[in-house]
Amino acid sequence: MNSLTSFAPRTGEVLGELTATSPAELDRACWAAAGVFEQWRLSSAEQRATLLRALATAVEQDREALVALADSETALGLPRLNGELDRTAFQLRHFADIAERGDPFAFIDAPATAGAPPKGHPAMQRWSIPLGPVAMFSASNFPFAFSVLGGDTASALAAGCSVVVKAHPGHLLLSQRMLSLVQSVLEAQQLPPALIGMVQGHGQAIGMQLVNHPAMAAVAFTGSTRGGMALGAAAAARPRPIPFFGELGSINPVLALPQKLAVEGAALAQQLAGSIGLGCGQFCTSPGVLVLVDDPLLAPDAVAVNDLFVQQLRQALQEQSPHAMLTQGMRTAFEAGVDHWVQTGAQLLLRESAPIAQPPRPVLAQVEAQHFIDAPPLREEVFGPACLVLRATDTEMAQRVLQAVGGSLTVTLWGFDEASHQAHSLVRVAMHTAGRVLFGGVPTGVAVNKAQQHGGPWPSSTRPDSTSVGDAALLRFLRPVSVQQAPEWVRAGAGQLV
Amino acid sequence: MNSLTSFAPRTGEVLGELTATSPAELDRACWAAAGVFEQWRLSSAEQRATLLRALATAVEQDREALVALADSETALGLPRLNGELDRTAFQLRHFADIAERGDPFAFIDAPATAGAPPKGHPAMQRWSIPLGPVAMFSASNFPFAFSVLGGDTASALAAGCSVVVKAHPGHLLLSQRMLSLVQSVLEAQQLPPALIGMVQGHGQAIGMQLVNHPAMAAVAFTGSTRGGMALGAAAAARPRPIPFFGELGSINPVLALPQKLAVEGAALAQQLAGSIGLGCGQFCTSPGVLVLVDDPLLAPDAVAVNDLFVQQLRQALQEQSPHAMLTQGMRTAFEAGVDHWVQTGAQLLLRESAPIAQPPRPVLAQVEAQHFIDAPPLREEVFGPACLVLRATDTEMAQRVLQAVGGSLTVTLWGFDEASHQAHSLVRVAMHTAGRVLFGGVPTGVAVNKAQQHGGPWPSSTRPDSTSVGDAALLRFLRPVSVQQAPEWVRAGAGQLV
Repeated sequence: MNSLTSFAPRTGEVLGELTATSPAELDRACWAAAGVFEQWRLSSAEQRATLLRALATAVEQDREALVALADSETALGLPRLNGELDRTAFQLRHFADIAERGDPFAFIDAPATAGAPPKGHPAMQRWSIPLGPVAMFSASNFPFAFSVLGGDTASALAAGCSVVVKAHPGHLLLSQRMLSLVQSVLEAQQLPPALIGMVQGHGQAIGMQLVNHPAMAAVAFTGSTRGGMALGAAAAARPRPIPFFGELGSINPVLALPQKLAVEGAALAQQLAGSIGLGCGQFCTSPGVLVLVDDPLLAPDAVAVNDLFVQQLRQALQEQSPHAMLTQGMRTAFEAGVDHWVQTGAQLLLRESAPIAQPPRPVLAQVEAQHFIDAPPLREEVFGPACLVLRATDTEMAQRVLQAVGGSLTVTLWGFDEASHQAHSLVRVAMHTAGRVLFGGVPTGVAVNKAQQHGGPWPSSTRPDSTSVGDAALLRFLRPVSVQQAPEWVRAGAGQLV
Repeated sequence: MNSLTSFAPRTGEVLGELTATSPAELDRACWAAAGVFEQWRLSSAEQRATLLRALATAVEQDREALVALADSETALGLPRLNGELDRTAFQLRHFADIAERGDPFAFIDAPATAGAPPKGHPAMQRWSIPLGPVAMFSASNFPFAFSVLGGDTASALAAGCSVVVKAHPGHLLLSQRMLSLVQSVLEAQQLPPALIGMVQGHGQAIGMQLVNHPAMAAVAFTGSTRGGMALGAAAAARPRPIPFFGELGSINPVLALPQKLAVEGAALAQQLAGSIGLGCGQFCTSPGVLVLVDDPLLAPDAVAVNDLFVQQLRQALQEQSPHAMLTQGMRTAFEAGVDHWVQTGAQLLLRESAPIAQPPRPVLAQVEAQHFIDAPPLREEVFGPACLVLRATDTEMAQRVLQAVGGSLTVTLWGFDEASHQAHSLVRVAMHTAGRVLFGGVPTGVAVNKAQQHGGPWPSSTRPDSTSVGDAALLRFLRPVSVQQAPEWVRAGAGQLV
């Protein structure tokens, strides 16, 4: 268990050997993060911004080596990885700006009000204070943007928290190189190395030890529903429970009305196939379900329109050549997931054979919507380039499909340009199913801005009131505290004192 | 199990018999709440405000009968109950105002930005939508303010949620009378009765059924740590987990420095005794622990000053005559809790015998601070008029006391008017221990305003990022949703559509 190996997904070649973090080393890293937290929570907005910007610059300056290393370990390809590095630097600077503006730390002032309660009250202020050291679990599928210096780390640092990163076993060498960059920047700024610590290991034990460590104050996790459920349960069962912000699996339904497909079907099929195949389907927002409504009341030739769209989608998928998956385990799980669909009654429309050592071929399958509603296994995420087409007889059944999904990071609605009673109903159900509802485009591609919400109802996340992307991601790591009749020296300290 | 009895706490007299809600009735109430939610979430701000204000008026108009009934069932006394009714009406109107102003529903607009990602992005908005039907568990100790029409119900209605109240068995007749008022108001406003439903019963089964009901979307709970832990675990273990906002037990340390007591000890002893005995100690913010610092570096005669303060506090407590406790079960638990202190090494300074059928007498006990840190049983809440004095040798030990407490609704700091290194440290630890830090006055009395935070770290609440009192209480029942490239008719709907 003490040795870790980095493999090249394309070839299976061994890229390097590393040593797993021992339990004693993890313990030290966590206590060190707790010690540094006491210092970092007193840091000024300027210090936080300066660190985040220096990290962004360091990542950009090492771009060539980082992207090459990331590509060898993940096979995600240079264009995508360069784009992801851009996004990572953008996020670091974005949270630097937020820390500097200070909006999340703005306090609410309720000056003393004369008179008896309930109206009268002493002087009060409501502050936001950082939670403490954050355990941050890197994701396999975003080696930059959801890893060592990803959005979770950037937002936690901006909030005033220290971080212990659990490196993902899928890109260990990259994580090590990132950590070296981090340490150079911290040293140059005379900040302690434990502000951004890192541990690495295989299997559940190391993650469990990290979540259960008494020094940890919160967990940010991006990964599978199964892994997130286990770690989330551990976070809740600690002697002192801590919040677990888990972004888990999601099947991201796309609901397309026939009147839209009748006009734009050919282009939309291309766009959707691109989204399904993007990054070999290894995105949390990859569209795994397509809902088509065979209702002649919506379009007289609805069935034919939908049949044609499925044909166009099949064709567009067939023309794709997905790259290698992140790990051999994911590659195997992908085939097993598609098998599971078939065993549960789905009919294959496209599945070309590909050796298990090669990248997968895109998969398209189809099933009656009612069967999808009745059979929970069809609602499990198949991570990879696969989409399940559901044929619904009317919008009422489409609505029940969304209700059966229950929770998803995204729901995409095509053909809702005009208001109608049915459109209202479906939009409402989509809102209750998703963290983000799209009325155009495809769900892959998650913008980093103040209006983003990346986190939907269970099972797509453990805390649908929070987001792991966008400005509000920082709020996960703050907690309100009221001060009452505080003396001037305390009030003056506001954000800094605590 | 089908029959419920209301007892008078003062006499043990039977005040009435009621029928428990059957599982089938509870099931119907929950589904009805889900049905009504679909209507109420579309209600206008004006409708919400009108309902909340009419409820406030109805409560005030029935004041005499309500307060008399509450007094007979709870023994809390007319002055306190009249004050609590005032607060309840105030809260209802407060959330009416908030609903009308609409601040919690304000959306964040990120207009389309040209260019490639990460900077460029389509038009996005971030809305806040109501969660769904809320299961609301009434508290024993606030028969108005944390019961049928208390702050949880008021904030949930303002958020656009329907409510199923679990009536507290300690004031069943009052809950029934409140429900009748509610139903009259709903009828007058042509709103369905299931908007505010109610169930009643004894034991854990009914609460578990309510928390596990598939129609419920969130739980608001005020009560014991043990009860809250069980229900919270159930909420997390549902096939679809839901948020559990539990306000649990709290021991509310008061830390008094000798230099302050040297000057104002006599008055502060009176004030503290009043807070300990208030409502027979049956407040979630009742000060259960007093930390004194015997450090001559703080005041040359620190030990003598602290000894005198303890004497003054003992005297002031002895002069009190607490009223009857809410239930015989609480009365018994109070004595058992004090026994437990003694068995764990606390030395009794005041404990006068009182028959178990009579109100309790105030209790004061003392123990070395280090022993409190070492012995977890001393940190359990003793619900009633009792306070445990801890003698710490210096502020460093006082700090470790707060760290051992871990989580509390409040920490009160006396003698922190001037900044110092020690004061900074203690304030920081207090902030990390509490949801509210007071620098003057006593923790009982929780103001309803925009700066309130009523909810501290575990075990004082299950969600320290939320509050059950004050403006932000409403935010518990909302969830963010982003809309992307939404057509005009959707954007125009914003808060209303969903």
